[in-house]
Amino acid sequence: MTRTVDFFFDLSSPYSYLAATQVDAAVARHGATARWRPVVLAAIFKAADNRMPAQSPPKARYMLADLARWAARYGVPFALNSRFPLNAMTAHRMICAARTRHGDAAAARLARALFDAAWAADRDITDAAVLTGLGDGAGLPGAALVAATQEQAVKDALRADTDEAIARGMFGAPTFVVGDELFFGNDRIDFVEAALAR
Amino acid sequence: MTRTVDFFFDLSSPYSYLAATQVDAAVARHGATARWRPVVLAAIFKAADNRMPAQSPPKARYMLADLARWAARYGVPFALNSRFPLNAMTAHRMICAARTRHGDAAAARLARALFDAAWAADRDITDAAVLTGLGDGAGLPGAALVAATQEQAVKDALRADTDEAIARGMFGAPTFVVGDELFFGNDRIDFVEAALAR
Repeated sequence: MTRTVDFFFDLSSPYSYLAATQVDAAVARHGATARWRPVVLAAIFKAADNRMPAQSPPKARYMLADLARWAARYGVPFALNSRFPLNAMTAHRMICAARTRHGDAAAARLARALFDAAWAADRDITDAAVLTGLGDGAGLPGAALVAATQEQAVKDALRADTDEAIARGMFGAPTFVVGDELFFGNDRIDFVEAALAR
Repeated sequence: MTRTVDFFFDLSSPYSYLAATQVDAAVARHGATARWRPVVLAAIFKAADNRMPAQSPPKARYMLADLARWAARYGVPFALNSRFPLNAMTAHRMICAARTRHGDAAAARLARALFDAAWAADRDITDAAVLTGLGDGAGLPGAALVAATQEQAVKDALRADTDEAIARGMFGAPTFVVGDELFFGNDRIDFVEAALAR
């Protein structure tokens, strides 16, 4: 049986983008697969009495340097989205709709496209036309998935995943869960790999 | 000329302890030396509008697992101090006094002994008798250094280092500074090494 790593992320989180560029290959090295699960980070911060790391001005300045260092290490493009902080609610619901209708692999493919749009191409992923185009580009029915973001069942699915992440101890993004073990941050992917290797 | 890496730490920070077990060897691999500089983390949090990471309950729980993982990776002992959070003001001033009177190497030796006492042996580093014994054990005049913590010049030295760290952009501990580049966290020692290797 293939092991599954839950990959909880928020498209508005640049460290989640960095992790998204690595997670599939990292877990595949250990015969595992990642289940891509968007969550509402603002709700998680509230439940955990945590807050956006960028609220501290010197920390926000530092993070720009740190993000650039990680992007260089990974060899991936990175540009802070000019609309930061982003409201990714509709984009997250679109991924949930893609998962229900087209499966986990399609949802992951769409999520990767949305991450790249937000953090490599400085696209506006709050815009329905942009989301439609990105869905189409990922080989999915973009307009239908954007329309589905208005359905209560889709909204409920995103809320349920967020509630589950909170119940499992999540306080920031990205978070990986291997069995009962939680790993927080793009910079803990090597610990995720060590857990899978045991 | 030997390059110097500023290693800003607070003895009350368990991630600073982890970094303290590694920093000398890490920078020595690149022909550099670490300058050990205690700072008042509470003042830094206040200036940076940052706060203790353990203020979020799920984050505090996670950090215990994360600290244990790092200690296992490094092969060093770790036990959360039973008095956490610690007030390390006197211990920090003792290190400043050791630096002024006995030089950087003596200050680093004392700091290592204090870190081990706090985070491997669960000692009370707010206690003057404990501090005296640890100073003696590090080959320094423990009682004289503890007495020196009451001198205004020693208090001023700790404050000046804290102010300098704030001016250089520090918002949490540990922080490493290589030239103008700041690196935050025990988990960025490999980036410090990469900067030294350039």
